[in-house]
Amino acid sequence: MATLLAIINIHIMTDIYQQALNYHQQNTGKLGTSSVVGEIKTKEDLSLAYTPGVAEPCRLIAKDKNATYTHTLKGRTIAVISDGSAVLGLGNIGAEAALPVMEGKALLIKQFGNIDAFPLVINAHKPLEIIDFVKQVAPTFAGINLEDIAAPVCFQVEEALQDIGIPVFHDDQHGTAIVVRAALMNASKVVDKPYETLKVGIIGAGAAGLAIARMILGLNCTADTCSRAHNAHHVADVIVFDRQGALYAGREGQNIYKQAIAGLSNRERKAGRPEDALHNFDVVIGVSGPGSITPETIGILAKKSIVFAMANPTPEIMPDEAKKAGAYIVASGRSDFANQINNVLAFPGIFQAVVKGRLKTITYPMKEAASNAIADAVVNPTVDEIIPSVFNPGLAEKVAEAVLKNK
Amino acid sequence: MATLLAIINIHIMTDIYQQALNYHQQNTGKLGTSSVVGEIKTKEDLSLAYTPGVAEPCRLIAKDKNATYTHTLKGRTIAVISDGSAVLGLGNIGAEAALPVMEGKALLIKQFGNIDAFPLVINAHKPLEIIDFVKQVAPTFAGINLEDIAAPVCFQVEEALQDIGIPVFHDDQHGTAIVVRAALMNASKVVDKPYETLKVGIIGAGAAGLAIARMILGLNCTADTCSRAHNAHHVADVIVFDRQGALYAGREGQNIYKQAIAGLSNRERKAGRPEDALHNFDVVIGVSGPGSITPETIGILAKKSIVFAMANPTPEIMPDEAKKAGAYIVASGRSDFANQINNVLAFPGIFQAVVKGRLKTITYPMKEAASNAIADAVVNPTVDEIIPSVFNPGLAEKVAEAVLKNK
Repeated sequence: MATLLAIINIHIMTDIYQQALNYHQQNTGKLGTSSVVGEIKTKEDLSLAYTPGVAEPCRLIAKDKNATYTHTLKGRTIAVISDGSAVLGLGNIGAEAALPVMEGKALLIKQFGNIDAFPLVINAHKPLEIIDFVKQVAPTFAGINLEDIAAPVCFQVEEALQDIGIPVFHDDQHGTAIVVRAALMNASKVVDKPYETLKVGIIGAGAAGLAIARMILGLNCTADTCSRAHNAHHVADVIVFDRQGALYAGREGQNIYKQAIAGLSNRERKAGRPEDALHNFDVVIGVSGPGSITPETIGILAKKSIVFAMANPTPEIMPDEAKKAGAYIVASGRSDFANQINNVLAFPGIFQAVVKGRLKTITYPMKEAASNAIADAVVNPTVDEIIPSVFNPGLAEKVAEAVLKNK
Repeated sequence: MATLLAIINIHIMTDIYQQALNYHQQNTGKLGTSSVVGEIKTKEDLSLAYTPGVAEPCRLIAKDKNATYTHTLKGRTIAVISDGSAVLGLGNIGAEAALPVMEGKALLIKQFGNIDAFPLVINAHKPLEIIDFVKQVAPTFAGINLEDIAAPVCFQVEEALQDIGIPVFHDDQHGTAIVVRAALMNASKVVDKPYETLKVGIIGAGAAGLAIARMILGLNCTADTCSRAHNAHHVADVIVFDRQGALYAGREGQNIYKQAIAGLSNRERKAGRPEDALHNFDVVIGVSGPGSITPETIGILAKKSIVFAMANPTPEIMPDEAKKAGAYIVASGRSDFANQINNVLAFPGIFQAVVKGRLKTITYPMKEAASNAIADAVVNPTVDEIIPSVFNPGLAEKVAEAVLKNK
């Protein structure tokens, strides 16, 4: 039966992929530019939009840079920037091949967040190159969505840019962490286990894995600090796994970002694979790749276990297999299964807040508030509804409002 | 009378400037982003525009970068990039203050050229910084409009980028040169002097001045060569003036770009101001600033003289004063006088050609063809109509076609 479902799944995906190629080719991509001041039809239009009239907003901004926010697209536009080094489940495919994702992301910011966004894929891969690029292009945009940049470069880039007051948000980290936390809070209600008591295994120690760990441990991590935020709502313990096994304080082969989390998690310093270390844990979250959550791992979890298999397009374990292995609540990143945990629940509202509030940084309390707003959008969470639909009306506005209350 | 006109002019401009501020503020700038694939309303839409469907165009492009032109906005989008170092007549006002101009430029490319464009203003001013930035962002765009970058940096940047096959077009140079040449060709018909016999003074030795000199001398200048193009249609002689006076071979205080033109123009090695050097010249072109074309200079030109006072918003000499001083044909950059020489006649068609032809360089023959197409759009040139209206229907298509014939 599992094999049959897998075959059907391959057929469905093949069909989606062919459709997606046509969809991308029919109009040469997905995002365009357009006038927000009507058509330029007369000499008068031209003299206002361009010379000589345009000289006046230029003079105004030369005197006061804040006017860039009121008189140009900077006041409502986000850049979606990627070097193409960690795209979806596809890996380091390069700038050009990342463009369909970034164009899609910009489109979703527009459609769901009602603000403008434009994709920039770049031939720059060293941390300093990416930092310099973003610094140079920053005058054009209200905020920067860093996307699909491999760890640990993404951490270095984000910290450096935050440190000089450029509003950056690495969605693979924080968008994912915000929605996972929201789903986990509602799941804890459904299984009737207080959020604060949950023990959580996270399989995958890249951008998403470490960010989820930071978020659910209530850690506020910037260039200056990485410690529990005041009053942060947090789970009981977390173990993060990379390919070598569980992270723990002092383990060999951990970069500084892994070392930092290792020292703040895995209290019992468990070693080994998930199958060895997750006895009686309540939750396992996969942000890795197909096959990395095994039925065996699910089998050793506590009763009423929660499994989030987030890899796209193919989850770490298919939902039906996870249920068969004993999982009580299962979520994935896929729209064709129940409980779709998708960043689109978070980032449109986050960027709407960045634009409306002219935010310079997105702090931990803002992210927590965004996460709570998403969780609260489900009135009565159930096994098959721990997270709102991505088409939940007004969600971006609620998220933006929650973020801005913490400005 | 001239004083009265000047006062009226100030009032008109003040009015335009106030209107332009409102125009820019009412919708927060001028250019937005929008879907070209309709609204994302269903899970199916989302699965095609974003995950999982988007993975397939990514895979396609990872295998063949050419697919970026068919499956993403790269296939129809131009970047308008400026460091804000030489904006309109306003000078080095910086990246932010340049954004209204770049946003306007992108809007005109869209409206007149029917292709997408997006502005990027950058905190990068040294040639190598700008070169690196453009190189890094190049995967996103079909072509790059460099704009309002001061000479001689603009020359260095353009040469270096052309040399590595990135399609760049510095509009202040080439757009201006193309439209000036078109206007000059038609003006030569009106005054019944063959184009090849014209002697031309150019006041201003920045990006526009040197580019006009190169263009009307028929010079093909790249990193590899700066010599007369095969079969180039060219005027008899040119003298270019900077603040120290006429450029001539061996003069002190000339950067290499001025030296190169000096060695290829001003055959009689005349020195001094325009008033000293332009006796019996047929044409004077100002690409400098208010006051730099004097009635005295116009007074020493040959009969049926041609004066192009191109500075924006205030011309080198007001058209009525130029006529009074003896000019037969007068053109300016202003839409409120006859004979508006505006780059918008050229760049939308040029970029349409770049997109349609996936051009890597815009060669001298392409520029000459574009210029001829613009000149030919005026069927019967007259004193007050040497150049088509910017609203001439189908002009961008004609320019693009002419360029692509020379591919």
